Amino acid sequence: MEVGFLGLGIMGKAMSMNLLRNGFKVTVWNRTLAKCNELVAHGASVGETPAAVVKKCKITIAMLSDPAAALSVVFDKDGVLEQICSGKGYIDMSTVDAETSSKISEAIISNGGHFLEAPVSGSKQPAETGQLVILAAGEKALYDEAIPAFNVLGKKSFFLGQVGNGAKMKLVVNMIMGSMMNAFSEGLVLAEKCGLDSHSLLDVLDLGGMANPMFRGKGPAMLKTDFSPAFPLKHQQKDMRLALSLGDENAVSMPVAAAANEAFKKARSMGLGDLDFSAVYETVKITKQ
Amino acid sequence: MEVGFLGLGIMGKAMSMNLLRNGFKVTVWNRTLAKCNELVAHGASVGETPAAVVKKCKITIAMLSDPAAALSVVFDKDGVLEQICSGKGYIDMSTVDAETSSKISEAIISNGGHFLEAPVSGSKQPAETGQLVILAAGEKALYDEAIPAFNVLGKKSFFLGQVGNGAKMKLVVNMIMGSMMNAFSEGLVLAEKCGLDSHSLLDVLDLGGMANPMFRGKGPAMLKTDFSPAFPLKHQQKDMRLALSLGDENAVSMPVAAAANEAFKKARSMGLGDLDFSAVYETVKITKQ
Amino acid sequence: MEVGFLGLGIMGKAMSMNLLRNGFKVTVWNRTLAKCNELVAHGASVGETPAAVVKKCKITIAMLSDPAAALSVVFDKDGVLEQICSGKGYIDMSTVDAETSSKISEAIISNGGHFLEAPVSGSKQPAETGQLVILAAGEKALYDEAIPAFNVLGKKSFFLGQVGNGAKMKLVVNMIMGSMMNAFSEGLVLAEKCGLDSHSLLDVLDLGGMANPMFRGKGPAMLKTDFSPAFPLKHQQKDMRLALSLGDENAVSMPVAAAANEAFKKARSMGLGDLDFSAVYETVKITKQ
Amino acid sequence: MEVGFLGLGIMGKAMSMNLLRNGFKVTVWNRTLAKCNELVAHGASVGETPAAVVKKCKITIAMLSDPAAALSVVFDKDGVLEQICSGKGYIDMSTVDAETSSKISEAIISNGGHFLEAPVSGSKQPAETGQLVILAAGEKALYDEAIPAFNVLGKKSFFLGQVGNGAKMKLVVNMIMGSMMNAFSEGLVLAEKCGLDSHSLLDVLDLGGMANPMFRGKGPAMLKTDFSPAFPLKHQQKDMRLALSLGDENAVSMPVAAAANEAFKKARSMGLGDLDFSAVYETVKITKQ
Repeated sequence: MEVGFLGLGIMGKAMSMNLLRNGFKVTVWNRTLAKCNELVAHGASVGETPAAVVKKCKITIAMLSDPAAALSVVFDKDGVLEQICSGKGYIDMSTVDAETSSKISEAIISNGGHFLEAPVSGSKQPAETGQLVILAAGEKALYDEAIPAFNVLGKKSFFLGQVGNGAKMKLVVNMIMGSMMNAFSEGLVLAEKCGLDSHSLLDVLDLGGMANPMFRGKGPAMLKTDFSPAFPLKHQQKDMRLALSLGDENAVSMPVAAAANEAFKKARSMGLGDLDFSAVYETVKITKQ
Repeated sequence: MEVGFLGLGIMGKAMSMNLLRNGFKVTVWNRTLAKCNELVAHGASVGETPAAVVKKCKITIAMLSDPAAALSVVFDKDGVLEQICSGKGYIDMSTVDAETSSKISEAIISNGGHFLEAPVSGSKQPAETGQLVILAAGEKALYDEAIPAFNVLGKKSFFLGQVGNGAKMKLVVNMIMGSMMNAFSEGLVLAEKCGLDSHSLLDVLDLGGMANPMFRGKGPAMLKTDFSPAFPLKHQQKDMRLALSLGDENAVSMPVAAAANEAFKKARSMGLGDLDFSAVYETVKITKQ
Repeated sequence: MEVGFLGLGIMGKAMSMNLLRNGFKVTVWNRTLAKCNELVAHGASVGETPAAVVKKCKITIAMLSDPAAALSVVFDKDGVLEQICSGKGYIDMSTVDAETSSKISEAIISNGGHFLEAPVSGSKQPAETGQLVILAAGEKALYDEAIPAFNVLGKKSFFLGQVGNGAKMKLVVNMIMGSMMNAFSEGLVLAEKCGLDSHSLLDVLDLGGMANPMFRGKGPAMLKTDFSPAFPLKHQQKDMRLALSLGDENAVSMPVAAAANEAFKKARSMGLGDLDFSAVYETVKITKQ
Repeated sequence: MEVGFLGLGIMGKAMSMNLLRNGFKVTVWNRTLAKCNELVAHGASVGETPAAVVKKCKITIAMLSDPAAALSVVFDKDGVLEQICSGKGYIDMSTVDAETSSKISEAIISNGGHFLEAPVSGSKQPAETGQLVILAAGEKALYDEAIPAFNVLGKKSFFLGQVGNGAKMKLVVNMIMGSMMNAFSEGLVLAEKCGLDSHSLLDVLDLGGMANPMFRGKGPAMLKTDFSPAFPLKHQQKDMRLALSLGDENAVSMPVAAAANEAFKKARSMGLGDLDFSAVYETVKITKQ
């Protein structure tokens, strides 16, 4: 099977390498073309432009850093739109907002092409080992066609319905994550202040019904006041805000998420926005200033 | 090693059977003595009264249903106090409040005995398979002495310091649990209302960093409006309230736990107190009445 | 002093009548010109179009029903822009969002005119009696020039600085109002449920440091489940949301407003959005469904 | 009319002076008897002990500083209980908890006496000018008998039903007060951070439907970071906690009060407990530490 691949950042490089290793023919493109060399050494072809990749491949996957980049490869000169047409599919796996996704979707479809948004859950390591979780939404036929590739890239893929649902699913998941992180932080501080050993709390939690990789992974670092950013707090807070807006549109009252959001805002006001979102722990610890 | 065992309810029976299977000599007592028969068939001796058990054994474990029963076996006629003395240890593994635990502790110690509170995390099945988590607090020397028994009864035991810390640890853990259940409920309702498939959300959650046995176990039942009580909502709310009180004593502000507590109170006001605590999900779903 | 007046709805009619009564020469315009007759009977002149009014008057005041109407009288054919020029002032007293206000401001200024946004606090009755509170922002010189008119229209006017500040002030005030209404509702329900007489609570509140016209005015109606809309709940919730957004932009954590906002959302989900915002009281009362 | 008066602190002195000025015969007692002199100079008699006062007077009023003092004058040697009997009434106007009030009530009644709890709203100045608000509960007949005295002491008295209702009414009122203070604080900080003038906000609020003596009185001091304690924050937080407990007992969910309570707890954790409760404003202002 032949696929195009646009964007060879940390994620894109790992993913396209994975496809190559699993027998796919891959034509790659990257804004800085030199980044293609390593892939070529493993058997990839190079397309000079996004348009060239789309011209050559029935299905093209994109993994770009942000909405601006996602829009650029589609709408700019030599972009995807110039070659997309009936019979060709475009799968954007970047994490973008619903509006960006809709804009791309409409353009692709109005040119006769097929579109899928497919943001992923998981970062560098799962990308390298094909353990991503893929949240696809858009055209079911294209999803079905892409399954062999998704099977290589992820441990699991979901087809979630119409375009926008992939982004929404990420928001719901991140909202739960943000509230859980607050619950965890409150528990850690309560344990400390009432004379319990925090490490024992981590151990007890990890042996019970609430045991989860996030508490296990971040707990010990939090106790050492280590908030090296895996997912920056300001981005977590933005996702809480967007999830609450989604609730507002749909008249869903979410008091716990709202309280968690205000705690993240408090953390931002304390200058912690660029640290890991687990730094919300600091807002619970505040004592005499 | 010889131990006494007071209380053969669901938990106590499973635990004493476990001790027998693992080579312990066990002398059992139960308010309704007939319940001892099955244990006798597996090699247990019977004590006619709590006092008789304590007289015979260096260490006596109790697993009783509530604070009233825990106090009764110690303070009533033919109770533990009549025989406890220097060199003997008493380990109360019942889940009781800090005040009850202190009262028992003081009485045992003032009679020269040694005391450990050791509430457990885990219910019937982990009790049968020796997979409990044991939260012990009180006298360290007695804890060390009891380790062989704890190793049989639980997958892990903790020594948490002074009497009261076992109960506090359970409160902290249950507080985190209550907030997580609210976060989960809000996420499930948001997903439904904004057009996502709830079962997909469960699957996505279970593949990521927040995957945990509670979401996995309770999620599908919640979606079927099945709230058969494993842990009644009114008890969960009571633990939230007690944890918030603990925070109040120690000047720890916990806005997310407070919001979760109010949701559980709302659930109680809706008549859901005797259902499983996952019924808090119903408070998020409320629509036109 | 001569002023133009665009828009003769409930508010605009009362305001322009007020100006006439106090010796102002007023040239009025209304989309349905027949509505001008009553004003003419009291001495007003009529302008055929917004442009005609602006051409004739040094200062033109507008009081329109919504952002669409506010934009239309400025930008449409025969609109304000066609005649606004150096030396002429335009004062928009409609309640519009910051974006609409900025758009109008920029257009007026780039045509050489002067601009003031001046939303008011107060409804029909204060408009008739000249008891409005005027929240003006924009060009100070125009504010100073308009003071004689503001003195007639309102009991007090404020100059709040740059365009947008009038709208922001209204949001802050309405946010406090929404939180207060929730506090009041919770108190009323708590009183009822714990056996106190609700009317006594109203009386006690009205005799103390928290006595205010809102509690006094709305309390008795709330106890009779009368939520005839003076300010619809969905608009109050929208203002809470916008105020929380303003807090988000400025990193101000506002947990009480956030909790109040979720209660208003709950009320919307219960179908109460078109009732008065005091209907949030119903969310506190919820019992068995 | 003749009344006894126990306790001549700031409040008690003002109140008994008031009664004297209005033609009552008053027999006073105070732990430090010298404090009676000033009253005697204005015509009061002195009782050597609480028992002596009760022996002499048909109705005895007490105004003591705390629950311990309230219990002491009743139960200690030479206390109220020694002389209370059929036909005599005892009115405790101290602010005490429901439990203390019940204990006193039961003792008085089981000795044949009549009892009224009657905490007041209002501090020194209203006590001097007879402008207190009296929240009476207990025996209606005694309330009716005491009305001439209440008319002198307060601008208004309420009979609220059974003993305990006076204390509950104060909790409900103080809960609303605490939430309002948080709403006000959030609004003040939001105004500052988004570029509005805080004093203008105070003025706008004071001209509208939410105008109230508390905002008017405390606002300017708050803006000057003046938190001289009129009502200490730790007492306000205690009342929020007790009101939330009352809600818990009656299954009333109060998310706004709960959020406000957590903010007061945060303030306590910042060491602000002894300042005025308006110091909760500082929790909203927190920025980089």
